[in-house]
Amino acid sequence: MKLLIVGGVAGGASAAARARRLSEQAEIIMFERGPDVSFANCGLPYFIGGEIADRDKLLVTTPERLQSRFRLDVRTRSNVEAIDRVARTIRVKNLVTGREYEESFDKLILATGAAPFRPPLPGMDLPGVFTLRTLQDTDHIKQRVDQGVKQAVLLGGGFISLELAENLHRRGIAITVVEKNQQILTPFDPEMTTPIVAELAKKGIALLLGESAEAIEQSAAGLVVCLSSGQRLTAQLVIFGVGVRPENALAIGAGLAVGVRGGIQVNEYLQTSDPDIFAVGDAIAVQDVISGESTQVPLAGPANRQGRIAADNALGRMVKYRGTQGTAILGFFDRTAAITGAAEKTLRRAQRPFRKVYIHPAHHAGYYPGAEAMTLKILFDPTTGQLLGAQGVGGAGVDKRIDVLAVAIQAGMTVFDLEEMELAYAPQYGSAKDPINMAGFVAGGLIRGDHPQIDLDEVLTALASSTAEPPFLLDVRLPTEFSAGHIPGAVNIPVDDLRSRLSEIPSGRKIVTYCQVGQRGYLATRILIQAGFPVVNIGGGFKTFQLFQPTR
Amino acid sequence: MKLLIVGGVAGGASAAARARRLSEQAEIIMFERGPDVSFANCGLPYFIGGEIADRDKLLVTTPERLQSRFRLDVRTRSNVEAIDRVARTIRVKNLVTGREYEESFDKLILATGAAPFRPPLPGMDLPGVFTLRTLQDTDHIKQRVDQGVKQAVLLGGGFISLELAENLHRRGIAITVVEKNQQILTPFDPEMTTPIVAELAKKGIALLLGESAEAIEQSAAGLVVCLSSGQRLTAQLVIFGVGVRPENALAIGAGLAVGVRGGIQVNEYLQTSDPDIFAVGDAIAVQDVISGESTQVPLAGPANRQGRIAADNALGRMVKYRGTQGTAILGFFDRTAAITGAAEKTLRRAQRPFRKVYIHPAHHAGYYPGAEAMTLKILFDPTTGQLLGAQGVGGAGVDKRIDVLAVAIQAGMTVFDLEEMELAYAPQYGSAKDPINMAGFVAGGLIRGDHPQIDLDEVLTALASSTAEPPFLLDVRLPTEFSAGHIPGAVNIPVDDLRSRLSEIPSGRKIVTYCQVGQRGYLATRILIQAGFPVVNIGGGFKTFQLFQPTR
Repeated sequence: MKLLIVGGVAGGASAAARARRLSEQAEIIMFERGPDVSFANCGLPYFIGGEIADRDKLLVTTPERLQSRFRLDVRTRSNVEAIDRVARTIRVKNLVTGREYEESFDKLILATGAAPFRPPLPGMDLPGVFTLRTLQDTDHIKQRVDQGVKQAVLLGGGFISLELAENLHRRGIAITVVEKNQQILTPFDPEMTTPIVAELAKKGIALLLGESAEAIEQSAAGLVVCLSSGQRLTAQLVIFGVGVRPENALAIGAGLAVGVRGGIQVNEYLQTSDPDIFAVGDAIAVQDVISGESTQVPLAGPANRQGRIAADNALGRMVKYRGTQGTAILGFFDRTAAITGAAEKTLRRAQRPFRKVYIHPAHHAGYYPGAEAMTLKILFDPTTGQLLGAQGVGGAGVDKRIDVLAVAIQAGMTVFDLEEMELAYAPQYGSAKDPINMAGFVAGGLIRGDHPQIDLDEVLTALASSTAEPPFLLDVRLPTEFSAGHIPGAVNIPVDDLRSRLSEIPSGRKIVTYCQVGQRGYLATRILIQAGFPVVNIGGGFKTFQLFQPTR
Repeated sequence: MKLLIVGGVAGGASAAARARRLSEQAEIIMFERGPDVSFANCGLPYFIGGEIADRDKLLVTTPERLQSRFRLDVRTRSNVEAIDRVARTIRVKNLVTGREYEESFDKLILATGAAPFRPPLPGMDLPGVFTLRTLQDTDHIKQRVDQGVKQAVLLGGGFISLELAENLHRRGIAITVVEKNQQILTPFDPEMTTPIVAELAKKGIALLLGESAEAIEQSAAGLVVCLSSGQRLTAQLVIFGVGVRPENALAIGAGLAVGVRGGIQVNEYLQTSDPDIFAVGDAIAVQDVISGESTQVPLAGPANRQGRIAADNALGRMVKYRGTQGTAILGFFDRTAAITGAAEKTLRRAQRPFRKVYIHPAHHAGYYPGAEAMTLKILFDPTTGQLLGAQGVGGAGVDKRIDVLAVAIQAGMTVFDLEEMELAYAPQYGSAKDPINMAGFVAGGLIRGDHPQIDLDEVLTALASSTAEPPFLLDVRLPTEFSAGHIPGAVNIPVDDLRSRLSEIPSGRKIVTYCQVGQRGYLATRILIQAGFPVVNIGGGFKTFQLFQPTR
C-alpha cells in the first residue's frame, strides 16, 4: 500500500499522521511545495504583531519530527506537477535541484489548499504589496514592518484583514481597511458587524466600504493605492486579503471534477471523481449542513478532520464526512464575533423560511463584577423551531455560546431544547438563566404565540413607508433611557405605568412596543394583548435598533 | 384563577413572573418567610469576601419591583404554616404581627427550598457558628469577619465551603476545611478533585479529610471545634456547609408524597401527589436524566426553569420537565472544576457499563500565548459510545467544554459526534482540533478498537498484585521527562526510538505503554500492535497517574 499526499499543512499533515497510526506497513510520502509543513496558519498575523514572539512556535511540527515519529517520507520544496490517472503515478519536481521524477501510488490525497486571490491590477508586483498565506509571506511582511511602516492599506474586510489590522495597529501603523462590499466580515449579517465597526473606529482604524483597489503606484512616500472612487491612499505596506481560490490546477489537469466556484468535488467519503484519489481542506467543495448546497469553507478545523477521514478511507475504512456548518470566530482586540450555521442572508437567498431572535445579555450574572455585554442572534425554522444558525458579538463568553449553539445545530436541536439546556452556572461563568436559555425562551415564546414579535427591519420599513399608516410606536423604558435616545416617532410610557395608562394607547391601530433589550417590551405586549390591543414587540429592543444604525 | 406561591427566591420568583406574563387576570400571591425575595444565593460568599462590594447587587429584585412590574401580591415575613387540601386553603402567619389568616387557592406552587443541615452537636448555638443560606446569614457572617476573625473552620468540602474558603482567604483568615468523606466536592470522582486539593495547599488552606465535628466549645480564643479524631481546632468563625435538606414539612403536613431522601415527589409536569399543587426547586426530588433515578439537585438553574414550567402548568399548559443532569461548576481562585451528567462512581453504583477517557489539553492553541492546562474526563457507553457524563478541571476554558458536553448529553450524542464537532477556532479561543474533538478521537478510537487502552486504576491494581505477573510498563517519553518522575517499575524507550528498539520489548508478556498525556503512548501502541505485541496504553498517561497520586 503506497499512499501519496500532496500538501503538508493542516489537511495533509493530519492525513499523513492518521495514516501512519492506522498502518505501520503503508509507504507514505508527503509532498509540500514550500519549505515548511504543518505550520500555524491562523497564528501568522500574531507573529507580525509580536503577540507570538517566537517564530518556532508557528511550526506545529517539522519534516524531521514527522520523519522520526511517524516514519513519513516528507519531501518539502517538491511541487507535484501532474497526475497520470491511468499509470497511477504523479510527476514531481524538486524545486531545489530542478529534477523531475515520477512516483507511483495506490491512493492519493490532495491537500493543496487555497491561494489568496491576487486581482490582476497594475502595480501588484511592486515591493510592499503582499498577500498572506505562508510563513515566507509572513517573514516578508514582518521584515517590512520592522524596517518602519507608517501607513498600511488592507484590501478586504474579512477575518485575516481584521486580524492583521489589530496586529499592525499594535505596531503603531496607521491603517485603512478597504472592503468592496457594504459590510465587513461577509459571512455575518451586516447588523451583527456593527460592534466590530465601532471597535475599528475606536482604535482609529479607517474603514472604507463599497470601495476597491484599481491600481497601485509607486510614490515618494512609498506606495499609493488608487481606489475605484478615485481616492488615493498613501501607504508603505499593502496587503490583499480579498478571498482565496482553491488550488485546483493539479486536479483539473488530471480531469477530476471541480465545482463552479473552483473547489474540487468530492463525495461524502471525500473521494474525488476518481475513487482512488481523495481531496481535503481549502481545495475542496463541501456540503453545507444547513442548506445542503455545495460551498467552500477555508477553515482549519474542517481541514484537519477531513484529513483524518480521507486517511481512514484511503486505508480501506468507510467514514463519512458530515459536511461543514461554517463555524468561525474572530478576535479583534477585546471583541469577539462568531458564527455557526446559516446567516439570515443565506436563508433569504435560499428562500428558506425562518424566524430570528436577538438578545443582548451579559456573559455572566450581573451581580458579579466584570459582566460583559454581548448580542446573540439565532435563526430558526418558524414551525419546528429547528436551529438554523447563530451569530454572536461582544466580549467574553461569546465563544462559549457559539460553541454550544454549534453543537445544538449539529444535533438538530430546536429552540425548545435551548430553553431546557442545563449549563454550568456560578456567577463567574454564566447566569441561572443562561443567555442560551434566554434565546430559547424568546424564540420559543415567539413560536408558541406567547410573544408576538416584529423584526426591527420590518418596523423600519413600515416607519419609512409613505403610503400605509405607521404603527403606534411605544417605548416602555424609563424616561431617562428614552431621552438618551429612542426610535424616532416613539411615545414613552414606562412598563411599570402601563397598566394605569392604558387609556393613552390608541385603539384600532397596530401597536409596536420596545424597550432596551426586549424583556420589558415583552411584558408590555403581554399586558396589552390581554387588554385587547393588537400589539407586537421589537425583538431585541433599542439595542437591536442601534445595531441597524451603525453611524450613531 | 387564584395562584399561591410559597417561597420567593429562585423557583418561586420565576414561577410568579412567568404566571403574570401568561395571565393578566390571575390573582397571584407569593409568600416568603424571609424579608427578601429573589436574592442572588450564589453570590453570598463573594459579598463576604468583598468581591461583590454592594449588598444591593445581591437583590435581583425587590417586593416593590415585583409589585409594580408584575402586579404580584408579595408578602414577605409570611410563613405558610399549613395546607388544607380539602378546603383548598393555606394558613399563613405574618411573622411581624403574629397574625394568622387563611388564603384560598385554585393552584398552589411550593418553592420552599432546602435548609442547610445543622447536625445536632453540642455548641451549635454558640455565637460564631453559622450556616449560610440567606442574606441575613451573610450579614451575620460578614459582621463577624469585619470585627476580626483570625481562624475559621469550614465543615464540609462542597461547593459553598470552597467558595467561602476562597473568600475568607481573601479576608486574610487562616482556614481549615473539614470533610467527612475521603474527598472534597463529592459529586466529582475523587481523582478529578486533585488539582483543587493542590490549589488549597498552594493557598495555605488546611484540608482534613475523613474528619467531622463532634462538638463546638467556647474558649479564650473564641471557639474550639472538636473533631472525631480528637483533634481540636481553634477558630473565631465556624460555618457548616454539610449539605442541605429539602424544606418538606409543609408538604408532609398536607399528606403530599415525599421521597426517601426527603424531596417532595413530583411527576413530569411538576405536580405533587395533589394535581393542583406543584413543587419546584431545592425542595423536590427530580429524575436524573442519565440514571433515571430519583435524586435531589439543589441548583439555581433547574430551580428557575422548574418555576417557569410549574407556572405554565398551573395556568393550564402541559409542559414537561425533562429531568436534571446535574451540571455544576466551581470557581476556586483561578481554578475551575465542572461536571455534567453521571460520575464514574454513580455509574459503578448503578452497575451501568461504561468506559472512560482522560485528556489533558491546553484550552487554546499552544502557539498562542496564555494557553492554560485542563483535564477532561468523559464517560460513555462502551458499545454505542453514548455520552454519560463529563468532568473538567483546570483554568480557562473548562466551563466552555463542560457546557458543550452538557448539550451533547442532553442531545443523546455519542463520542463519534464529538469527533465531528465543528467548534469555533481562532488561536485565542481553541484549537483546530478542539479538546472536545480530541476527547472524541480518543474515545472513538477506543470503541473502534484502534486504540486499546487500559484505565490507570486497573494498572495500579495490577502493579500492586503479588499473585499475577505484573505487566511490562513502557514509558515512551523523553529521558528528561522520565527522570523527572515516572510510574514505579517503568522502562523508558522514547516513542521516536521504539521502531528501532523493538528487540528490547519482552515477548509473551502484557505490555502497558504510557506517555505524558496519552498521545505518544497511543502511537506506541499502534507500532507495537502492528509488530505483534499485546499492548494497551494508559489513557491520559502520566498526568492521569498524577491525579491518582494527590500527595505528590
